[in-house]
Amino acid sequence: MLNSIQSKMILPQNNISKSTAKYLPGILQRKAIDKNIPILILMEGWHFSGKGYIINELLKPMDPRGYKVFNFENFSKKEKNSPFMWPFWQNLPQRGNFGIFSSGWYYRLLYHFFKKGRDDNLIHIINNTEKLLIDDGYIILKFFLHINEKEQYERMKNLSENKSSSWLVNKKDEKQNKHYEKFCKLYDHILEKTNTDYSKWLLIDANDKKSASDECTRLFLNILEEKISKINKEPIVQEAHEHKETEMKEYIILDNVDHNKKIPDSKYEKELPKLQKKINELQLKLLKKKTSVIMAFEGWDAAGKGGSIKRLTAKMDPRGYRVNPYSAPDSHELKYNYLWRFWKNFPTDGRIAIFDRSWYGRVLVERVEGFALKNEWERAYKEINDMEFQLHYHGIIIMKFWLEIDEETQLRRFKERENSDYKKWKITDEDWRNRSKRSLYKSALEEMLEKTSHDYAPWIIIEGDCKKYERIKVLKEAISNIEKIL
Amino acid sequence: MLNSIQSKMILPQNNISKSTAKYLPGILQRKAIDKNIPILILMEGWHFSGKGYIINELLKPMDPRGYKVFNFENFSKKEKNSPFMWPFWQNLPQRGNFGIFSSGWYYRLLYHFFKKGRDDNLIHIINNTEKLLIDDGYIILKFFLHINEKEQYERMKNLSENKSSSWLVNKKDEKQNKHYEKFCKLYDHILEKTNTDYSKWLLIDANDKKSASDECTRLFLNILEEKISKINKEPIVQEAHEHKETEMKEYIILDNVDHNKKIPDSKYEKELPKLQKKINELQLKLLKKKTSVIMAFEGWDAAGKGGSIKRLTAKMDPRGYRVNPYSAPDSHELKYNYLWRFWKNFPTDGRIAIFDRSWYGRVLVERVEGFALKNEWERAYKEINDMEFQLHYHGIIIMKFWLEIDEETQLRRFKERENSDYKKWKITDEDWRNRSKRSLYKSALEEMLEKTSHDYAPWIIIEGDCKKYERIKVLKEAISNIEKIL
Repeated sequence: MLNSIQSKMILPQNNISKSTAKYLPGILQRKAIDKNIPILILMEGWHFSGKGYIINELLKPMDPRGYKVFNFENFSKKEKNSPFMWPFWQNLPQRGNFGIFSSGWYYRLLYHFFKKGRDDNLIHIINNTEKLLIDDGYIILKFFLHINEKEQYERMKNLSENKSSSWLVNKKDEKQNKHYEKFCKLYDHILEKTNTDYSKWLLIDANDKKSASDECTRLFLNILEEKISKINKEPIVQEAHEHKETEMKEYIILDNVDHNKKIPDSKYEKELPKLQKKINELQLKLLKKKTSVIMAFEGWDAAGKGGSIKRLTAKMDPRGYRVNPYSAPDSHELKYNYLWRFWKNFPTDGRIAIFDRSWYGRVLVERVEGFALKNEWERAYKEINDMEFQLHYHGIIIMKFWLEIDEETQLRRFKERENSDYKKWKITDEDWRNRSKRSLYKSALEEMLEKTSHDYAPWIIIEGDCKKYERIKVLKEAISNIEKIL
Repeated sequence: MLNSIQSKMILPQNNISKSTAKYLPGILQRKAIDKNIPILILMEGWHFSGKGYIINELLKPMDPRGYKVFNFENFSKKEKNSPFMWPFWQNLPQRGNFGIFSSGWYYRLLYHFFKKGRDDNLIHIINNTEKLLIDDGYIILKFFLHINEKEQYERMKNLSENKSSSWLVNKKDEKQNKHYEKFCKLYDHILEKTNTDYSKWLLIDANDKKSASDECTRLFLNILEEKISKINKEPIVQEAHEHKETEMKEYIILDNVDHNKKIPDSKYEKELPKLQKKINELQLKLLKKKTSVIMAFEGWDAAGKGGSIKRLTAKMDPRGYRVNPYSAPDSHELKYNYLWRFWKNFPTDGRIAIFDRSWYGRVLVERVEGFALKNEWERAYKEINDMEFQLHYHGIIIMKFWLEIDEETQLRRFKERENSDYKKWKITDEDWRNRSKRSLYKSALEEMLEKTSHDYAPWIIIEGDCKKYERIKVLKEAISNIEKIL
C-alpha cells in the first residue's frame, strides 16, 4: 500500500475556502454534540512524520472543550500487561466528543509484530473493535503519515543536533530508521490487513509537512461533514423502545437442569472451609503468576448471586479481588459504548474480578425490556464473543456462572424477603414484574447460552434451589477452572 | 502513643451479640446509602500485622456491592511522581459507598519520612485533607495495627519458610523488621501528629490476630452506628438553596483595572507568533524536566477565555497539554467532594493542564447562585489554598487568570454573538441572567482574589476589553511565570 502513495486517494477533492476552513470545524463539532456522535481520529505513521504538528493544525479551529488528545507511545507497566485493546477502551471518547489517538492501537500492533512476529489474531481484534464502534455510531478517521527513510533520518538528525531538542530522540527512533525496510514491510502488511470496507485508511504523503497538513485538514473536514450529515441520531437515553418481543425462538437448554440437587448441612459445613482455603491458595498463585481471572455472575432474581459471591470470596485476600456490581447504566455510562463500563474493570495484574451482573445484560434485560434495539442485541453476541476472546487471548481466565432456580423457589424466596425486616429491601416491584416475564427471559437466556459458550469462556450452570449446594458448586467450579489453566 | 497500647481505648465498650454482628453491617451499609454518606476506612499498621485478614473479617457481613478495597503499597511510576494526596483523590469513595484503603496515605508518609526525613508540611496536608473530607460529610475510621518486633519477625519467617508463600516476603518487609526501632519512632511521631480532634486513631494490639479482628469489628460497628445516626443528610443535588446573598462585603480590587488597554494590530501580528514559539519551547523544557503546570482561567462571560486559551496553545505540542472544560457538576461528579473532579485532571508528568473554569466556581457561581451553603463556600477558601499549596509543594507551577472586561464590553459582545450565525450558540439566557447579578459576582470575586492570592499561586488580572491585548498578556504572563521557576 505504501508504494501506491503517489496515486491520489479516491476521495472528495472539492477544495475548502479559507473562511470555511475557519468556521467549519466548529460547526461540525457542534453538530457532533447535537447528534451525540463520538468521533475517533487515529493519527498513525512513522516516527517524526509530524503527527503532533498535524494534530495541532487540525485542532486549531476547534473548541478545546470538545476533544482530548492521547498519546500511547509510553505505556505504564499496567498498560503493558493489559489485553491488547484495554488502554484504548480506558480512554474512549464520550458521545459528542472527539478523541485523538496519536499512535494508538496501530502503534502498539507495530511494535508487537516487530518484537514477536505477525499475528492475525491481533489484526482481527482491531478490525472487530473498529466494526463494533462504527456499528455503535462512532465515526473513525484513520490517517497514516508516510515519510521516506531519508526524510526520517534528516528530521531525526536535525533534532539530535540541537541541544534543546536532542533529548526528544531516543533509541526506539533510531532503531526504526535503522530498520526502515523491515518496518516498511510491517506497516504495509498492517495497512493492507486493516483497510476494511467500513474503516479505510487515509494515506498521507508527509514528506512535506505543510502540504501533508493541508491534505489532512481537507480530508478531515470533507469526510467528517459527509459522515455527520448522514447520521441522524437522537441522544441515547435508556428508554424502552416500542417494539418489544412477545414471542421468541425456543431453545431447550435449561429444561434438563435438576432442581432437586441438595447437600446435607453437615457436608456443607465440612466442605466449605476447605474449598475457601483452596481458593485462597489459588489466589496467591494467580497473583504470583500475574494471571487474572474474570467471573461473571448472572441468574434469576433471588437465585443467590450475592450469597454465592460472599462465600466465594470469604477467605480471599481483599486486596486481590474486587466485586463489580452492575445495574442499569447511568447517564455517564450511557455516553459510551455499552461494553466500556465493563472494560474499565477488567483486571491486568493477577487479580480476580467478579462481576455481579455483566455485559450479558445486553442480550437479557436490555433485549427483553426493549432497552436495546433488535439489531443492537443481535450483533451483541458476536461483540461479546470477540471481547471474551481478546481477554482469553491475553491469558485471562474467564468463567460465566448462570444461577438457575425454578419458579417455585423464586416465589418462596420473594415472599421470605418481604416478610423479613432484614431482607425486605432486597425485593422491589421490578422483581415481581421481571418474574411475570419468565418465559421471555428464558428464551433470551437460552439463546445467549447457545451463542456465547466457548471452551475458553464457558457458561457454568449452577443449580441454585438449594443455596448450600449452589455455593459449594460455585467454589468447586471456580477452583477446577483455575487449576486447569494454572 | 504505641507504648500506651496496652491501656484500653476510651471507646464504647458495649458488646455486640452474634446475631447483631451478622446483620448490623448490612443495616449500616444501607443507612449510609440512604443518607448518602461516604465512608473511608484507613487500615494502617506494621507489615504483616494482618491488615488483609482483618479487612476480610470486617467486610464479610457486608454487601460487596457497596465497597471497594484499595492497596497503595505498589505505586505506578505516575503515582510515584504525583503530589502527595493525588493517588488517594483518584480513588476516593463515592457518597454512600465504603472505601477501604489498606496502607493508604500513612504508608506513603512513613516511607517518605524514612527516606527523606520528617516533614511537617506533609503532616499538615494529611490533617487538612481529613478535615476537608469530614467537613464534607465523610466518615473516616483510621485503624493502626500494632505488633511487636518478635511477632513481626516470626510471621515473616513463617511465610518465608513455606514455598508457596515465600514470594510474599520482600526486601521492604525485611528492612522494616531490621530497623524496627527506627520505624517505631516514626510511627509514634506520625500517630501523635495526626491524632486530631476530628480524626482520632484507633490503636489495635494486633499480636493476636483473632482478638485484634474482634476488636476492630467491635469498634467499627459501634463507631459507625453512632456516627451514622448523628448525620441526617439528604441526598446531595445541585439545587439552589433558599437563602441567597443579596448584599455582600465590599472590596476594591478590580476598580483600578484599566479598561482602555489596547494593542495595535500590527504589533499583535508581530508578537503573537514569537510568543507562541517561546511557549512551545518552554513546553519542551517542562516535559524534559517533568515539571507540570496548572493554569486556571476564570472571567466574566464573553471575556474571551476560549480565544485566549486557543492562542496560548496554538503552537504547543497537543500531546503535552490538555484543556479541561468545566461547567456545573453532573450527577456523577456530585457523588464526590467538589474538588475531586479537578484532582482527576491535575498533571503528574510535565504536562500543562489548562482549566477553562475551575475550582473557584465554588466561591463564585456556587456562592452567588446558592448552590453551595454559606459554611461550604466560606471554608472553601482555606480548602482551595490548602490544595494549591499541595500542588506547589510538589513542584507544580500554578497560575490563575482572571479575565476582566467592563459591563459595556460584555454587552457589546453578547449582542454581537446574538447577531452572528457562527457565534449565537455561545450566548444563552443564563448569560443574561448572570449579567444582571454583576455586583453580587463582583463582591464574591474580590473576596476570592483577596483570600486566595499567593506568591506560589498568583491571581493574574488580564485586561480583556481589547481581545488582542488580552491574548498577548496571557501569553506573556504564562511565559514569565514559567521561566521564573524553570
